[in-house]
Amino acid sequence: MKIGLIGLGRIGKLYAEILLKNFDEIEVCAFSPRLQKRFYDLTHISRFKFFSSWNSFIGDHSIIGYIIAAPSTTHYEYIKKLIKFGKPIFCEKPLDLSLKRIDKIHELTKDSGFPITIGFNRRFDPDIRQLKKEIQTGTIGTPHIVKITSRDPAPPSIEFLRSSGGLFLDMVIHDFDMARFLLDEEPISIYSEAEVLIDQEIGKIGDFDTAISTLKFPKGTMVVIDNSRRSVYGYDQRIEVFGSKGMITTKNQRDHSVIKYDHKGSHMTPLKDFFIERYYQSYVNEMTEFLKICQGDKGQIVTVNDARQATKIALAAMKSIKNQRQNLIQ
Amino acid sequence: MKIGLIGLGRIGKLYAEILLKNFDEIEVCAFSPRLQKRFYDLTHISRFKFFSSWNSFIGDHSIIGYIIAAPSTTHYEYIKKLIKFGKPIFCEKPLDLSLKRIDKIHELTKDSGFPITIGFNRRFDPDIRQLKKEIQTGTIGTPHIVKITSRDPAPPSIEFLRSSGGLFLDMVIHDFDMARFLLDEEPISIYSEAEVLIDQEIGKIGDFDTAISTLKFPKGTMVVIDNSRRSVYGYDQRIEVFGSKGMITTKNQRDHSVIKYDHKGSHMTPLKDFFIERYYQSYVNEMTEFLKICQGDKGQIVTVNDARQATKIALAAMKSIKNQRQNLIQ
Amino acid sequence: MKIGLIGLGRIGKLYAEILLKNFDEIEVCAFSPRLQKRFYDLTHISRFKFFSSWNSFIGDHSIIGYIIAAPSTTHYEYIKKLIKFGKPIFCEKPLDLSLKRIDKIHELTKDSGFPITIGFNRRFDPDIRQLKKEIQTGTIGTPHIVKITSRDPAPPSIEFLRSSGGLFLDMVIHDFDMARFLLDEEPISIYSEAEVLIDQEIGKIGDFDTAISTLKFPKGTMVVIDNSRRSVYGYDQRIEVFGSKGMITTKNQRDHSVIKYDHKGSHMTPLKDFFIERYYQSYVNEMTEFLKICQGDKGQIVTVNDARQATKIALAAMKSIKNQRQNLIQ
Amino acid sequence: MKIGLIGLGRIGKLYAEILLKNFDEIEVCAFSPRLQKRFYDLTHISRFKFFSSWNSFIGDHSIIGYIIAAPSTTHYEYIKKLIKFGKPIFCEKPLDLSLKRIDKIHELTKDSGFPITIGFNRRFDPDIRQLKKEIQTGTIGTPHIVKITSRDPAPPSIEFLRSSGGLFLDMVIHDFDMARFLLDEEPISIYSEAEVLIDQEIGKIGDFDTAISTLKFPKGTMVVIDNSRRSVYGYDQRIEVFGSKGMITTKNQRDHSVIKYDHKGSHMTPLKDFFIERYYQSYVNEMTEFLKICQGDKGQIVTVNDARQATKIALAAMKSIKNQRQNLIQ
Repeated sequence: MKIGLIGLGRIGKLYAEILLKNFDEIEVCAFSPRLQKRFYDLTHISRFKFFSSWNSFIGDHSIIGYIIAAPSTTHYEYIKKLIKFGKPIFCEKPLDLSLKRIDKIHELTKDSGFPITIGFNRRFDPDIRQLKKEIQTGTIGTPHIVKITSRDPAPPSIEFLRSSGGLFLDMVIHDFDMARFLLDEEPISIYSEAEVLIDQEIGKIGDFDTAISTLKFPKGTMVVIDNSRRSVYGYDQRIEVFGSKGMITTKNQRDHSVIKYDHKGSHMTPLKDFFIERYYQSYVNEMTEFLKICQGDKGQIVTVNDARQATKIALAAMKSIKNQRQNLIQ
Repeated sequence: MKIGLIGLGRIGKLYAEILLKNFDEIEVCAFSPRLQKRFYDLTHISRFKFFSSWNSFIGDHSIIGYIIAAPSTTHYEYIKKLIKFGKPIFCEKPLDLSLKRIDKIHELTKDSGFPITIGFNRRFDPDIRQLKKEIQTGTIGTPHIVKITSRDPAPPSIEFLRSSGGLFLDMVIHDFDMARFLLDEEPISIYSEAEVLIDQEIGKIGDFDTAISTLKFPKGTMVVIDNSRRSVYGYDQRIEVFGSKGMITTKNQRDHSVIKYDHKGSHMTPLKDFFIERYYQSYVNEMTEFLKICQGDKGQIVTVNDARQATKIALAAMKSIKNQRQNLIQ
Repeated sequence: MKIGLIGLGRIGKLYAEILLKNFDEIEVCAFSPRLQKRFYDLTHISRFKFFSSWNSFIGDHSIIGYIIAAPSTTHYEYIKKLIKFGKPIFCEKPLDLSLKRIDKIHELTKDSGFPITIGFNRRFDPDIRQLKKEIQTGTIGTPHIVKITSRDPAPPSIEFLRSSGGLFLDMVIHDFDMARFLLDEEPISIYSEAEVLIDQEIGKIGDFDTAISTLKFPKGTMVVIDNSRRSVYGYDQRIEVFGSKGMITTKNQRDHSVIKYDHKGSHMTPLKDFFIERYYQSYVNEMTEFLKICQGDKGQIVTVNDARQATKIALAAMKSIKNQRQNLIQ
Repeated sequence: MKIGLIGLGRIGKLYAEILLKNFDEIEVCAFSPRLQKRFYDLTHISRFKFFSSWNSFIGDHSIIGYIIAAPSTTHYEYIKKLIKFGKPIFCEKPLDLSLKRIDKIHELTKDSGFPITIGFNRRFDPDIRQLKKEIQTGTIGTPHIVKITSRDPAPPSIEFLRSSGGLFLDMVIHDFDMARFLLDEEPISIYSEAEVLIDQEIGKIGDFDTAISTLKFPKGTMVVIDNSRRSVYGYDQRIEVFGSKGMITTKNQRDHSVIKYDHKGSHMTPLKDFFIERYYQSYVNEMTEFLKICQGDKGQIVTVNDARQATKIALAAMKSIKNQRQNLIQ
């Protein structure tokens, strides 16, 4: 079985690696022989095929699904091209930075009858799946307060940030999606505050590096998200859901569990500090689900509408900062 | 040495107990023989004296300081009466529910030249003292995000709530004070959201039971506070301070450390579920500091201005809810 | 109510402090005016009376019980003197270093009809009480393996060690008592190994500083105890009970719960490092029980036989080391 | 590159899976077409080849190393057959149950000049590697006490146990190896106690299900190991190393980190309860090292002598139980 891969940057390579390492029956195909040598260090390179032309790549009948990992500005065009072939598409987040174009994609895909799924990978994390399961089985009763902490180990380059859409569309969007996913509802309003506390260069391009957002959901559940672009102690990813019958929380992960005790106290190793390392299993699970879909089975899907809603929330957050007031999400 | 105690309800009794148990040299005095029998169960009752008249009580030269633990509506009058005697006063929180009257007290006391200290007892908690010490010594660099979780085990009676001033003036005010105390600064703005999720009766008297507030401080530090009137797993009191060089956190307390492991998992006993039990040491430390002041030494003081600022923040929070927007604190 | 205190060293002073601070109705009496000034710094000194002669002290009718905290070589004589007065006696551990003299005390006291209780204070610790309660209610089913870790922060002086009876009679005896207390049975055999790894001076006086002992109980339960005279990270006191239905454990204690996270990892403050600080509540509870007994009520007692059994185990341990084999305890 | 696999039971299949999944360039070969269909469910079956005869299998020049995962009674014969081909051999533990035959293998292989490595997989676990690294870099100074807890979730079948060599040769041998590995020394003596507390059937075949062993090492370090065949709360694998400068510990692993808080307390999911799940990464690392060796590089080796020493310790432990005394290990 072949999967077509579009986009051969860091994320494209990650998907290739995960498919080749974890799914023996899968061949990964791309169409850019020029980039072929960049992939030589993949351990399973023998199952990575390069087509010499876009047309042969896109027309190959044995390809059962496509992964779009190219720059987000190109997603719309690729989806438009691929959709007529009627094959499942996995599109990396952000689907697009423009809500208008996301709406177009939504329009384009909503009646297509075949699945398109978006790369909000955290939904596939074992801890978060367990969290959702607990919420759904009523372990904590009605959720009252959800707290999401999401802090990167270090800010990306200014170059990356410039075209990223900014803190909310690039980073917090994951947490907005998390809130919707966990509560299975749409938020009705948001209030955000943001600051430049880490690097003044980030401020100069009109972006922020630190933020707190509060969302309100229809039944009164409040979600508060705190974000930072630089957590010196590692990648800090925690969720806490407080409800009428109790609370559930997730913890951060470390490379090993060794604790040292000395005259100064007791010491643990820092948190995992790279998103791929922290969420590796999520990526594997995500691909497992996508391959199910490619084979005609039911798999866990993240819809275009999910991407659209998360984008709407991010845009509302940015407007809220400007207006210093709560913003309705419509 | 004698301490005069005004107000003989639950909190008055607590102060009596703490003084009698922990400070052998202290006699506690009150002026209401009528209430004397309510105190018979105090273990150190032999050092609890009752004056037969208010005048003899207030005029006794051997009393070195007064504690006001009477209803908050009476604080102003008691302070006014006591201030001319030039003795240290400890006044339980809230100093008053009316900012106008707090201003009057401020006016009244600011030039009095003797100390008046307010019962924001958490400032005296060993964990919180350690937290402040770490912040001051720069352990975490510049604070960027402070998260305060403060959830009561169960809501007070509707009767109590009716005269309490509401969630923000009664409960969140502690957390507002905490934010000011830890950061040693005044916040410039606040945004709050609040809901009635636990008991509709609370809503009927115009109050809330669940809230999230975000404060902004001059250097950009953001503080987020989440509150609930009912945490079924016990009294949840946590603080997390995240900064440019790291993070520091406090943990909740339990009655014992026994962990049980069985086929269902591992289990710990619930959190301590009563504020007096959780903050007992804070009350002892608070009285230790007040007794220092009474003896003319330097002790840790919580000023009338501290109470005034916390009240201002609470009022701004309530206005923010009404306006659904950020409110400046002036 | 008066308690007579015999022995005014560190432990005598501790009992005085605990009684005076926690039991307002108690006066502590001693008979050595010469030592009076050593106690001036006790906060509740006003309730500490000194008799001018032994006879008046021992004959005072208002004294309801005696605490013997004098050197262990004197315990036998004091008990002999006190026993005819028919008042409850609390005797600090070790009851005596000689099994022969302990037997004599046993003989002397077994028909006396009034309670004598020995200072194995750990039995009164809240965590250990909870542990025993869980074992008794069958939480973990039948106990299979008990692990006791008991490591002092630092060795006592060589002078102290010289007359201490050695590692097993001075230190491990607490853990032997713990094993008997938790399992409510007598062990049938012991095997111990011991080494001098910390300080060669300890070896020169024929003592050890590090040991591991394995006890076997009638139903097959095995108890393993590991001891060290120097744990640089603080006073390490842990118990783990593993059984047919699960496991229960206790944890060490710290002065505060603050955790610091930085680029090197996460860090907690060292363990409490002084036995009085760690077991303060045990001492309070122990005195609470003794005072009950003094007032004719039922209180938790540690019997002379408990001391005798623990001593027998310690002696069997020492013999086991010499013989390098399992030793029966008879 | 081809790896020859001998033995196609549970462990053989595990090695096949690990090689196929994690090392894309590896083909696994076996010689028993009869068993071929048992392997159909391996995800990477396409790289699993079956030879039709033993001779063609053993003589294939493209096979770079052999894994022996057949029953332990056959190990000696297979090694004898394979050794003349001069290729690296990986032999699953136990190398053999008979010390005499292990000695023969030692004799046979010691001058062969090519590596043979034994499957003590825990040496390759990330936590244990980190532990060893810390010991070697002197983090805890000189080791004084090592505590190893090793408790299986459930006993194997009586059939398995009958030919297993018993608790010490089958299970505790891992922990004996661990002690030698961590301390990089040979123990000089052992004392063990063992009981039948879980299943009387185990006793009927002359085996035990619960044990405690104490080893002494040349510099005085003591190692205590506690074992049980049934831990209802999951697979309990912990190590603690206490030394002159501090302590280091490892923790158990769980499937996810979610904690639930309710009115009964706080709850975590049980420990991982299967050795393959718990030590999966060790197996991967072990194969990584073996493949290095097969390719002529330096890899982490567990020698025949390591297996011999661990066996000697196990035999000495069994003798110690019989004699109820410390046994020298020679």
